[in-house]
Amino acid sequence: MDTEKNMPSVAVIGLGLLGGSLGLALGRCGVKRIGWARRAETRETAAGIGAVDTAYPDPERALAEADTVVLALPIPVIIEFLPLCAKFCRPGAVVTDIGSIKAGIVSRAEEVFTSGDGPFFVGSHPMAGTEKSGLTAAFPELYDNADVFITPTKNAREDAVKRVEEMWRRLSCHTSRLDARSHDLLVARTSHALHVVASALSLDILGSGGEEEKLFRFRGCATGFKDTSRIASSSPRMWREIVESNQPAVLEALVGFEKELDRLKNLIAKGDFDGFEREFARGKALRDSWLEYKKMK
Amino acid sequence: MDTEKNMPSVAVIGLGLLGGSLGLALGRCGVKRIGWARRAETRETAAGIGAVDTAYPDPERALAEADTVVLALPIPVIIEFLPLCAKFCRPGAVVTDIGSIKAGIVSRAEEVFTSGDGPFFVGSHPMAGTEKSGLTAAFPELYDNADVFITPTKNAREDAVKRVEEMWRRLSCHTSRLDARSHDLLVARTSHALHVVASALSLDILGSGGEEEKLFRFRGCATGFKDTSRIASSSPRMWREIVESNQPAVLEALVGFEKELDRLKNLIAKGDFDGFEREFARGKALRDSWLEYKKMK
Repeated sequence: MDTEKNMPSVAVIGLGLLGGSLGLALGRCGVKRIGWARRAETRETAAGIGAVDTAYPDPERALAEADTVVLALPIPVIIEFLPLCAKFCRPGAVVTDIGSIKAGIVSRAEEVFTSGDGPFFVGSHPMAGTEKSGLTAAFPELYDNADVFITPTKNAREDAVKRVEEMWRRLSCHTSRLDARSHDLLVARTSHALHVVASALSLDILGSGGEEEKLFRFRGCATGFKDTSRIASSSPRMWREIVESNQPAVLEALVGFEKELDRLKNLIAKGDFDGFEREFARGKALRDSWLEYKKMK
Repeated sequence: MDTEKNMPSVAVIGLGLLGGSLGLALGRCGVKRIGWARRAETRETAAGIGAVDTAYPDPERALAEADTVVLALPIPVIIEFLPLCAKFCRPGAVVTDIGSIKAGIVSRAEEVFTSGDGPFFVGSHPMAGTEKSGLTAAFPELYDNADVFITPTKNAREDAVKRVEEMWRRLSCHTSRLDARSHDLLVARTSHALHVVASALSLDILGSGGEEEKLFRFRGCATGFKDTSRIASSSPRMWREIVESNQPAVLEALVGFEKELDRLKNLIAKGDFDGFEREFARGKALRDSWLEYKKMK
């Protein structure tokens, strides 16, 4: 498969943190980028900072001109856009997305992408992001070294799946294929539930008590709190949509976490500090081996 | 009070991350630093990297020569050192520490520091640290802009308390006085319980499941997990000692956090996503106002 031929142009639909960063990163690979965003101001800024080569005010035109389309939109809007993509994208085109859940998106895509000649839909979930939102927070390194989960649809041809994988690999990402249901269970634990935990920490530690107590709480929080709660500063709307789209898996993940926390709490309650130290050491070893695996520091 | 006269020399007892960083920071203020560490190799390294001006192999000599003494040791060792300080420090000297709990340290200090002419003991808890340990992890900016809680003892004169406050302020820290019991309750929530939560996250997310599942978990964790769990990579021994020294307050803090988490979980379980979004937005606003307060980003 000749990738140069197969990926001459990518349409980035939605130009927030993820879409904008994707445009900037694709620009460094010499890919032609067509962009779309609802607001004229965003389209102008995106063209101005070089996140896209061209931005169209109508999504149909962007879809029709591209060989690869990336829906970098909120989850409900991705789902809304799928029929439009099935209608306006070229027969050989491949449509993918960046959504944090996959089952709802893949099942809708399987309903609307029905032609054997394409366009095809292949889900993607790049494990990349920050607590910030919007194009002004975009930067080209966002996807560097990120893992990307690929969830093919029933009617997607193998070369379509490969084209999406190839796009992410060009951006120094590592791809793994996974079915949509397994994906959603997995990221409920590794990402979604974490946001609920971080939010609860922020609410509990900073939100309770009177004014004087609150001032001391503010003083008593340092870099440990800063990092542990960082993702509590993420977009409330986006996380509502993610949690809503993955409700049972998020609840299951929270129950699993509470069980583990209770186990540690019980060791402390019964004064088994040797046991607590052993468990803390095991948690440290796991995290340190993960940093090693990800080549992070 | 003439601070220059009152703080010509500081003894830093213990040269790990906190003691080493303190020595480096005091060096930038032109303070004469005497150091002590149990291991000869640590003393040599500390002198070599300029964390201290002189390092003595016997703590008695370091204590006898200094006007201000900082015990930068593990909690049980701080408590062990208090009688030695009361015996060997000069009459006008002030002894302080960097321990994460204060009640156990202050009550022991009140037993052994009994002379009306000093030495005096004044507890300190600088809200500074990283997940790393040891002198090799030390850096002079560790205390920049940190809050420091000051817990005076009954027999400490006001000028002794002021001398300790002045030392921290020279290092660009912000000091607040607090009684030891209130301090321990406060930091159980803002710091100690967080370490248990981070450890439970690491154990739950990375530790469960078979080998293949584990590999996917490793892939599914990204920067959100990295930051939320960072402090799980801290020293197991140190956190065991802190939790052991502040057991009832840590348990109470964990119960408070679990309550808040349950509240969010129940909103998700009953499908009240508007309510979840509102609470997430409140947690974000609290954290963002805290960043503003701390002038962090």
